[in-house]
Amino acid sequence: MLKIFDNINIIGFDADDTLWKNEPHYRKTEKELCYLLQNYLPADKVSEILFQTEMANLKLLGYGAKSFILSLIETAIKISGEKISASEIQKIINLGKSLIDQPIDLLPDVENVLTSLYNHYKLIIITKGDLLDQETKLAKSGLKKYFHHIEIVSDKNSKVYSEILRKLNINPIEFLMVGNSLKSDILPITNIGAFGIYIPYHTTWQHEVVSESNDKQNSYLHVDKISKIVDLLI
Amino acid sequence: MLKIFDNINIIGFDADDTLWKNEPHYRKTEKELCYLLQNYLPADKVSEILFQTEMANLKLLGYGAKSFILSLIETAIKISGEKISASEIQKIINLGKSLIDQPIDLLPDVENVLTSLYNHYKLIIITKGDLLDQETKLAKSGLKKYFHHIEIVSDKNSKVYSEILRKLNINPIEFLMVGNSLKSDILPITNIGAFGIYIPYHTTWQHEVVSESNDKQNSYLHVDKISKIVDLLI
Repeated sequence: MLKIFDNINIIGFDADDTLWKNEPHYRKTEKELCYLLQNYLPADKVSEILFQTEMANLKLLGYGAKSFILSLIETAIKISGEKISASEIQKIINLGKSLIDQPIDLLPDVENVLTSLYNHYKLIIITKGDLLDQETKLAKSGLKKYFHHIEIVSDKNSKVYSEILRKLNINPIEFLMVGNSLKSDILPITNIGAFGIYIPYHTTWQHEVVSESNDKQNSYLHVDKISKIVDLLI
Repeated sequence: MLKIFDNINIIGFDADDTLWKNEPHYRKTEKELCYLLQNYLPADKVSEILFQTEMANLKLLGYGAKSFILSLIETAIKISGEKISASEIQKIINLGKSLIDQPIDLLPDVENVLTSLYNHYKLIIITKGDLLDQETKLAKSGLKKYFHHIEIVSDKNSKVYSEILRKLNINPIEFLMVGNSLKSDILPITNIGAFGIYIPYHTTWQHEVVSESNDKQNSYLHVDKISKIVDLLI
């Protein structure tokens, strides 16, 4: 075990793209929107306007699948100059519903890692998105049994993490967060004196991307796959 | 103070239509949809199909404002025989966004009641709906300071209440739930051995309606306005 983890008693895991595949499903749905709108604009432009629409909707609608569906619809209306038909909008809603209604693909070695850590640490999940959608994914994943506590939040920043740790009586120096988003899982945690293990995933939503090299203020461990954390922690 | 409340230490409050006005805003948006679709079907038929659509979407999309917006759109597409225009669908999305983005109207005497109870009981909120939407309403309400704990859930049933009480180390016999929905706030609580105070609101979503007279299994207190609970509890 690494000496820096001597104090760690509780490990928080992000869920989407840390425990199971998520972002690739969103990007697939985005591609289907691009295909539907190909007569109006090239795919890269559609993606750009979709992202702008999501950002414009973020404050009011928040993160998660249902906001995403509403942004898909608004993007299609905008790009088509209000010419898109009702049946095509229904198609977009159906794409969004399939996005929510799909099976869970656990990432490689996740279950082994949780089994190994389970007897040595208290494990919790901290994930953001739609409440019901995240609960359903967790239920489908079969991973619930490994976790002492599940926290679904509307955003992940230092204030939110502080509140969760306070509520659960966790001292930041005994807390480690594992996740694929530097912006949401690692930096806000290191800012409050806890430790982070960053495991990048091959697909990251543009909104979650921050450059590692810009960060000179924080220490965290960058690991290329989740299977590696067991040897670091036990 | 009523003797039946001798054991009560913690009071849970529902939020929508218990602390602040909510359902009338939804019904107003429904009316606006009916108006938009008046050339296709009479208002009562539109309302009926909207309700069916909401029920069909409930399992996948859950409760809350964003599901409601998606159901409004699907209802309009269905009723218009896919003839509704993209600009009208954008109008529906905007109606839904205004529904989310409106000021909070506290119900009469709510703040006085919370001020009175605050020094005698631990107060918590248990509400269902969209995570961000409920958080935003609570922040806008100015009532956050009265509550020891806020729980936003995807559904309210006996299992969910049991888990919350267990998590917060609350014994059901010391717990009282106050709310406007027999189905969501009162019956599931009495089923697990806690007590309920039912304060009906003049507008109740059809899905939440259960008949009081059908219920011969449960005891709860039916009160006509929230101001009355202070004398019962202090």
